[in-house]
Amino acid sequence: MRTGGGTEPVDVREDGVMPQLRIALAQVNASVGDIAGNSSMVLDWTREAVQQGAHLVAFPETVLAGYPVEDLALRKSFAAANRAEVESLAQRLQQAGCGDALVVVGHLDRDDEGVRNSASLLYDGRVVATYDKHHLPNYGVFDEARYFAPGFDLPIVRLHGLDVGVVICEDIWQNGGPVSALGEVGVDLVVCINSSPYERAKDDQRTPLVAGRAAEAGAPMAYVNMVGGQDELVFDGDSMVVGTDGQVLARAPQFTEHLLVLDMDLTAGGHTATTVPEPEVPAEGGMQFVPASRFLRPAFDITRTVLQADPLPGYEPLPAQPLPEPLSDEAEVWAALVTGLRDYVQKNGFRSVTFGFSGGIDSAVCAALCADAIGADSLYGVSMPSHYSSEHSRSDAADLARRLGCHFDVQPIGDMVDVFVSRLELSGLAEENVQARCRGVTLMALSNQHGHLVLAPGNKTELAVGYSTIYGDAVGGFAPIKDVPKTLVWKLAQWRNAEAEKRGEVPPIPENSISKPPSAELRPDQVDTDSLPPYEILDVVLDGYVEGDRGYADLVGEGFDAALVERIIQLVDRAEYKRRQYPPGTKITLKAFGRDRRLPVTNRWREVRP
Amino acid sequence: MRTGGGTEPVDVREDGVMPQLRIALAQVNASVGDIAGNSSMVLDWTREAVQQGAHLVAFPETVLAGYPVEDLALRKSFAAANRAEVESLAQRLQQAGCGDALVVVGHLDRDDEGVRNSASLLYDGRVVATYDKHHLPNYGVFDEARYFAPGFDLPIVRLHGLDVGVVICEDIWQNGGPVSALGEVGVDLVVCINSSPYERAKDDQRTPLVAGRAAEAGAPMAYVNMVGGQDELVFDGDSMVVGTDGQVLARAPQFTEHLLVLDMDLTAGGHTATTVPEPEVPAEGGMQFVPASRFLRPAFDITRTVLQADPLPGYEPLPAQPLPEPLSDEAEVWAALVTGLRDYVQKNGFRSVTFGFSGGIDSAVCAALCADAIGADSLYGVSMPSHYSSEHSRSDAADLARRLGCHFDVQPIGDMVDVFVSRLELSGLAEENVQARCRGVTLMALSNQHGHLVLAPGNKTELAVGYSTIYGDAVGGFAPIKDVPKTLVWKLAQWRNAEAEKRGEVPPIPENSISKPPSAELRPDQVDTDSLPPYEILDVVLDGYVEGDRGYADLVGEGFDAALVERIIQLVDRAEYKRRQYPPGTKITLKAFGRDRRLPVTNRWREVRP
Repeated sequence: MRTGGGTEPVDVREDGVMPQLRIALAQVNASVGDIAGNSSMVLDWTREAVQQGAHLVAFPETVLAGYPVEDLALRKSFAAANRAEVESLAQRLQQAGCGDALVVVGHLDRDDEGVRNSASLLYDGRVVATYDKHHLPNYGVFDEARYFAPGFDLPIVRLHGLDVGVVICEDIWQNGGPVSALGEVGVDLVVCINSSPYERAKDDQRTPLVAGRAAEAGAPMAYVNMVGGQDELVFDGDSMVVGTDGQVLARAPQFTEHLLVLDMDLTAGGHTATTVPEPEVPAEGGMQFVPASRFLRPAFDITRTVLQADPLPGYEPLPAQPLPEPLSDEAEVWAALVTGLRDYVQKNGFRSVTFGFSGGIDSAVCAALCADAIGADSLYGVSMPSHYSSEHSRSDAADLARRLGCHFDVQPIGDMVDVFVSRLELSGLAEENVQARCRGVTLMALSNQHGHLVLAPGNKTELAVGYSTIYGDAVGGFAPIKDVPKTLVWKLAQWRNAEAEKRGEVPPIPENSISKPPSAELRPDQVDTDSLPPYEILDVVLDGYVEGDRGYADLVGEGFDAALVERIIQLVDRAEYKRRQYPPGTKITLKAFGRDRRLPVTNRWREVRP
Repeated sequence: MRTGGGTEPVDVREDGVMPQLRIALAQVNASVGDIAGNSSMVLDWTREAVQQGAHLVAFPETVLAGYPVEDLALRKSFAAANRAEVESLAQRLQQAGCGDALVVVGHLDRDDEGVRNSASLLYDGRVVATYDKHHLPNYGVFDEARYFAPGFDLPIVRLHGLDVGVVICEDIWQNGGPVSALGEVGVDLVVCINSSPYERAKDDQRTPLVAGRAAEAGAPMAYVNMVGGQDELVFDGDSMVVGTDGQVLARAPQFTEHLLVLDMDLTAGGHTATTVPEPEVPAEGGMQFVPASRFLRPAFDITRTVLQADPLPGYEPLPAQPLPEPLSDEAEVWAALVTGLRDYVQKNGFRSVTFGFSGGIDSAVCAALCADAIGADSLYGVSMPSHYSSEHSRSDAADLARRLGCHFDVQPIGDMVDVFVSRLELSGLAEENVQARCRGVTLMALSNQHGHLVLAPGNKTELAVGYSTIYGDAVGGFAPIKDVPKTLVWKLAQWRNAEAEKRGEVPPIPENSISKPPSAELRPDQVDTDSLPPYEILDVVLDGYVEGDRGYADLVGEGFDAALVERIIQLVDRAEYKRRQYPPGTKITLKAFGRDRRLPVTNRWREVRP
C-alpha cells in the first residue's frame, strides 16, 4: 500500500541502465570515549574509500563515542563533545577532499527530550541530516532505555538520483517502525549502521533478518557493523549488503577491520511521498517499554533532502568480490576470544600480561589465546607450586611455555602459605583458599612491579557453580574464557592444536593438559569431580538452567536426574556474589552470567530448596 | 472536569457523619526471594492489624518478592511462585479470621505482555482485584523498564461505602497516569504502596509529593513504604497518611518496622464513573521510554467492584498518635547505615563480622556502626601492624576495642610481607600494596576459618579517587561506609560520640582517631595529603562532579582552582575499575558510584585530558 505520487519505479537514466552507486562500508574498531581518535579514524577511512571512488561511506553505530558507553551517555559534556565533533568532522572531511561523498556517522546527541543515539549524514562540509535511533534495546547486555530518547524523525536524502534512508541496529530487530515506514514512502537504498555484539552463531539470525528488512523496505540494505572488543562485548563485523530479493551481494570477514567497497545498480524510484498513509499497529513482542498494542503508531516526520537530483554517468563497475568462507563454530569462538582479549589489553594501555600456569587446561587455553592475541613475547607465565602441586602440574606448565615461546618463571608459594597457616592456625577450606590467595598476591605484586595485566583464567562452568577462590584464582583484570563452558574449553584446545598441525606448526597446548582429569590441587589427590558432577552433564544442565531459563521442574521433566539437577541449581543460586566480584571477560553468549544477569546479592529465592 | 454521573460528593450515612475507616499501614522488612517468609510476615501483621480492628491493611510494593529483585524478575518460575502465593495467602488470611479486611499486597505477576509489578487486593479468601504498576522507573538504581510491562488497568473497590484506588511508588513520582485518572473518575481514598529507597534528605521531596498527589486525586493518600536493607539499598519506611488538604495525619518512624493504625473520617463520593473523559497529554519530563508528547494517553481500563456498599456503623475512633520527631541529618544517615549493615549481615546468614582495626577514623566508625547494628559481641577486630605502622595505630585500635567491648586480636603481617618482598624483589608501590594484600589474605583466612563476614571499611572519597588497594583494603563482602564522604565520616564520628555522652555512655570512637591526620601507613611517614587534596576541598569538588554532573568547565566557572579540578577529575575518571571490584555498601545517595553509575571499564573519555 504505497501513498500516492511518484512511487512508480522510474529509470531516470537516458540510456536505460539502472543508476549506479559505489558504496563503502567501513567496518572499524572504535574505542569508548576516544572521540578524537575515533573521529580521526573516520577521516582516514573515508579518505581511503573516496580514493577508491566511493560515493557513500558508512560507519558503525556510535562510532564517535564507541559502544557501549553506559552512564557516560548521561554526562552532559560528553554528549556535547560528540555533537561538536560531528560538525567539525564534516568540515575536515571537505577540507580533505571528501566533501562529495555522503558519509554516515554514528554518534551521541542531546536535546530537550534527552540523549540520542544518532546517525548523521555528512556532505559538502555540513551535517545534512540526522536520524535518531527509534527502537532502543533494553534487555540482555543492553540498557538503552536508561540512556536514550527514541527518535521519530526519518530523513531521506537523494544522492545521485537515489533515495537513501538510514536506520540504526535495533531498528531492524523489532517489527514496525522506521524500516516499515521507509518501505511505505519509498527509498532506493537503506543504510543500517550497527554496534551489534557477537553472540555464538548469531549470524544464523542476522543474515535472514537483514534480508527480511530489505524486502520490507523494498530496497537493498547496506549493513555495517562495529568490529573489535570493548569490555565484555566483542563485535564481529560481518558487514554485508543484501539485495531486495534477499541475496547477499557482498560481505566483510568477521573479527577484522575491513573496508567493503562495491558497485551497485539501483532502481531510482523517484519517490516523493513524505507521509506514511495509515498509522499501523506497531511492533508486537518487542522490547518497547510501552506495549505496542496500547498505542497507535506515531507518524514519523519524514523529510526528503536532494543532494544531487541526477544519477551519475555510467562507469565501469568494480569486479564483485567473492563472499568470505563462513567460519566453523570453534574458529568463530576462538576469533571472538582473541579479539576481546587483544582489545581489552591494548585499549587499557597494557603491553604485557601475566597469570598462573597451573598445568591445567584453562590456563593452557588462555596462554594460547594470549599468544594469538598479543604475541608470546608479551606473555609472562608463572608456575606457583604449593606443597600439593603434582609433578605434572609443573612439567605441563613448563611444556606449555616451551611450545608457545613465552616468558616463564617459577615462584613456589609454600613459604608464604606456611606463615599464614601456622600464624592463623588454618585448616580445611581456609588452608585451601590461602594457597589460591598467595598466588593472587604474587601475581598482583608482579603486576605492580612490572606493569603486566593479570588475567584470571577461570571458565564459565566453574564461575557458574562458584568453584573458585575469591581474591585467589579469581584475581585479575580480565577473564578471557569467563563465558566458555569447560567442555567447550576442551573442544577449543583440540581445535587449536589441530589448526597448528594443519599449518605445520607446534600445537600450542600440551596433550597432557587436555587429557588429564582437572584438579585445583589445593589438597592431596583432589580432583574437580570430588566437588562437581562430570562436566559433560554439568554443562548441559547449566545451559538449560541459565541460557534456557528452564527451572527445576522443566529439567527434571526433560529426563535429568532430580538430585543432580537440584544440586547444580543450588550451586548456581549460591554463587552469585562470587560472580559479581569476578573480573570482566569476553562474552560469547548474550544471556550469560555477569553484567547481563544481575541478581541481588542478598537473595533468599532458591529455584530448589535444600 | 469530572465525567457525568454520581460524582457529586454524597454523605451516604444516615446520621450525617462522614463514614469511618480504620486503616493499618504495615511498614515491614521483606527479604528478596523469600516468598514463603515474606508471606508469613504478611499473615502475622494482618492478624495483628485485624486484632486492632483495621478494615484495610496495606503492605509495601513487592512485599512477597522483596525489592529489588533484579533479574530474578525474568525467571519464569519465580513470577509463577509469586502469583501462586498471592492466591494461597488470600485463603490463609480468611482461615486466620482476616477475610473481612481488605489487604493490599505487592507481588510480581506475569502474563502475555510480560512481568508485572503488581498490587493485589485480597478479601474474603479471594484476590478481588489486581493493579499493575504503570510508571516504571528506569534511572539511578532502578531498571524497571528492563523487567516489567506497565499496567493500564485501574481497579477501584468500594469498601464499607468508600471507593479505594491503588497505585504503586513511581506512579506518584511522575506526572499524569493513574493518580490523575483516579482523580478524574473519583475515589475516596488512594493507597500507594512503595519500596522507595532511602536517600539523604529524601523526605524533603517525599512529603510534599504525597500531599500534591492527594490533592490531584481529590482524596487522602495512605502511603506505605518498605523498611530495612537489601544489598546496597536501604528503605527508611516513613509511611504516612496525608489528607486531601495536604495535612500529614499520621506517620511511622523511620528505619524500624511499624504498624501504623489510624481511624479516618472519609467522604463517600458514591462515584460511578469508569471512563476518563478526555485523553490527556501524558507526563512530561518523565522517565517513560516513549516520550509522552508523541502519543495520546491510553485510556485506563477502570473497573469498579463493590465489596460492601454501605458504610460502617459509627464507632469510637482511636486517639490520634503524635507524629514522630524528625531525625537530624547525622541521626538519619547513621540509622540508614546501621540498618543497611545489620540487614546485609543477617539476611546473608552471618552471625559475626571482622575487619582490620587500623586506628584510623574509617575503621573506628565502621566498628561503632557494627556495635549498634549487630552488637559488639559479634564484632572481631584485628590489628595487623606492619613495619610501617605507627605506635598510635596500635594503641588507638586497642582503645577502640576497649570502648566498644568487642573481640580484638593482633596479627602482625611483617613476616608474610617480608617473604613476598624478598622473593619477588618488590619495591615502591608493589611493596605498599603487598602489605594491604597480606591483610586481605589474613582477614579472608579468619573468615574461612571462623565464619565471620569480612567488612571493607573504605569511605566514598577514597573509592571515588581510587585511593585503595584492590584485593587489599578493598577485600570484604560489604562496605558499610562506601557511600559516605570522608568529611561526613568525621561528622558522624563526632555526632555518635556526642550522642553517647548525652546518654551517659562511653563515646565509642577514640578522640585521637578523629583528630589525627589520616594515613594509609604503607610507607614511612605517609599521610593521605601526600597523594590527595585536603578532604574539605576534595569532597566538595567530588560532590559537584559526581552527584551534580558538573563538568570541568562548570566547576572552574564556580571558582575552584583549575589545576585542582583537573587533578580530581582525572583521579575519578581512572578509578572506575577499582570501584567495580569493590563490594556492595549501603547507599545514602541515589546517584553515586557503584551499580547506578555504570561506566565502561575500557574508556578513553576523560573529562579532562592530562
